[in-house]
Amino acid sequence: MSKINLRKKLEKFSEHWSPKVIAEMNDYQFKLVKIKGDFVWHNHADTDETFIVIEGEMKIEFEDKTVELTEGEMYVVPKGVEHKPYAEKECKIMIIEPRGVVNTGNTEGDLTASNDVWI
Amino acid sequence: MSKINLRKKLEKFSEHWSPKVIAEMNDYQFKLVKIKGDFVWHNHADTDETFIVIEGEMKIEFEDKTVELTEGEMYVVPKGVEHKPYAEKECKIMIIEPRGVVNTGNTEGDLTASNDVWI
Repeated sequence: MSKINLRKKLEKFSEHWSPKVIAEMNDYQFKLVKIKGDFVWHNHADTDETFIVIEGEMKIEFEDKTVELTEGEMYVVPKGVEHKPYAEKECKIMIIEPRGVVNTGNTEGDLTASNDVWI
Repeated sequence: MSKINLRKKLEKFSEHWSPKVIAEMNDYQFKLVKIKGDFVWHNHADTDETFIVIEGEMKIEFEDKTVELTEGEMYVVPKGVEHKPYAEKECKIMIIEPRGVVNTGNTEGDLTASNDVWI
């Protein structure tokens, strides 16, 4: 494999809420996502999910709290926990989770993205 | 859990080659490490290992090539592959790998660090 430059990879796409795979470690994938506006409430029944903010600011709403994340901050959403990502302005993030995880988890709708799309 | 600010966590220790755990995702751990100088040649027989540079520059030497990484760049070392991290000046990195992985892999020596040390 070659080294991966996060900012260069982020220049390769512009869609929101459409995760792009940039690397695999064992059966886990590293995905870059540009987010803006409201996502949907969902959970991932079988896995934790890690968010790392590369650029910008985002929020993750939970049933009992809201976590605000800015560049250089991360959060691990525990498996099975309902959450809703949100960004007022475009925010660039990296998500780490097992291969095969669908972005909208237990829900399916307009924001459900194609899986395993590499850039 | 609370959100994790990588730079604030990095202020909490100064030793080199001494990984500190900051988060877990399923059975994987996120570890911050400050590195400087030469590490030892080693491999991890059972797992890939991900390096992400937070600040500074590092190299990972392999038997057939050397990869240079700077801030915002990452590399996944495949399992079983001999490698030797190196940093001319102090470099701050995050390593992601399964819980229980020892920093020196198949070798043990002066640079073998205590495992599962949280900050």
